[in-house]
Amino acid sequence: MNNIESMERLIYAFTRLPGVGRKTAERYAYRVLELPDEDVTNFAKALVEAKSKVKFCTQCGNFTENDLCDICRTRHSDVICVVKEPKDIVAIEKSKNEGYLYHVLHGTISPMENRGPNDIRIKELIGRLDGIKEVILATNPDVEGEVTANYIAKLIKPLGVKVTRLATGIQMGSDLQYADEVTLTKALQDRKEM
Amino acid sequence: MNNIESMERLIYAFTRLPGVGRKTAERYAYRVLELPDEDVTNFAKALVEAKSKVKFCTQCGNFTENDLCDICRTRHSDVICVVKEPKDIVAIEKSKNEGYLYHVLHGTISPMENRGPNDIRIKELIGRLDGIKEVILATNPDVEGEVTANYIAKLIKPLGVKVTRLATGIQMGSDLQYADEVTLTKALQDRKEM
Repeated sequence: MNNIESMERLIYAFTRLPGVGRKTAERYAYRVLELPDEDVTNFAKALVEAKSKVKFCTQCGNFTENDLCDICRTRHSDVICVVKEPKDIVAIEKSKNEGYLYHVLHGTISPMENRGPNDIRIKELIGRLDGIKEVILATNPDVEGEVTANYIAKLIKPLGVKVTRLATGIQMGSDLQYADEVTLTKALQDRKEM
Repeated sequence: MNNIESMERLIYAFTRLPGVGRKTAERYAYRVLELPDEDVTNFAKALVEAKSKVKFCTQCGNFTENDLCDICRTRHSDVICVVKEPKDIVAIEKSKNEGYLYHVLHGTISPMENRGPNDIRIKELIGRLDGIKEVILATNPDVEGEVTANYIAKLIKPLGVKVTRLATGIQMGSDLQYADEVTLTKALQDRKEM
């Protein structure tokens, strides 16, 4: 960028975004120069506003601008779907489902990273089980997600609440030859009669 | 995003960047929420500052924060490299070369888009030829780039300035079987004795 300071700062800012390297950041910065003044001002405002206004729902831990998120405020269900991060809710909401309540753990149990059960929102989940019939554990199907799901299952089952886990298996629309061993083993073990 | 207004505005802002669709914009917006407050403020400031401070060099048309860009101010050369956009300069500067001066046309001649020779910075180029020995036409090797290069060449040659064009041919490090017909035809026509 021929050492244009303000451009360098903007390029650096863009590299803070996930998956954005120097080259992509340069492309973004150039585009900013081409946008109308007003759009750039709005962009800047949107950054600061989102950061300052968005907080976590005091009940489920989802993103919200209010005390309670839209789902907690308006939805009635006796099923809580437990996820690791708020963005997981977006993914599940896009699927066909019956409209669950959610509970965001904000992390998983990870001995490697020195994160125990008290470091994620498990206590808060236990406190919400009154009137709940089922808890769906929708943490990721990786080591930490499995450990966390197992831990929570052991804790909740004795309370008489049904605990389920998302099914794992080969991906819909995928090609069998590209499925990894672990997935395929699991898919065979969990095969269903037709 | 469960209709969080400030997030929707931020996601929309990100979709204005080149190659960024809804999904990528969502990922970026989530990352913004995770960044420290100060970084987000700096990000916003960088956007506005780059947009307001960066303008075009009055001589060559490159990006700069001053009247003249760094290259025009400090470099001495009797070769001008003519490019379509300021970002092309960055690409050429990264190559091994002798340190040219540049001239940014800010566009190409395009009958399709109703853009003639007077709509790009050709006049300004002619006005800079005093003492210049060579003009390298480095517009893109596409229809508009070729038309523009040919137009400028016809204009400049009679003035006794050497006019050259970037070589075209198969890409370095590429695989012959993936080269397109036009490129391969050109590479054969322009073959060099070894």
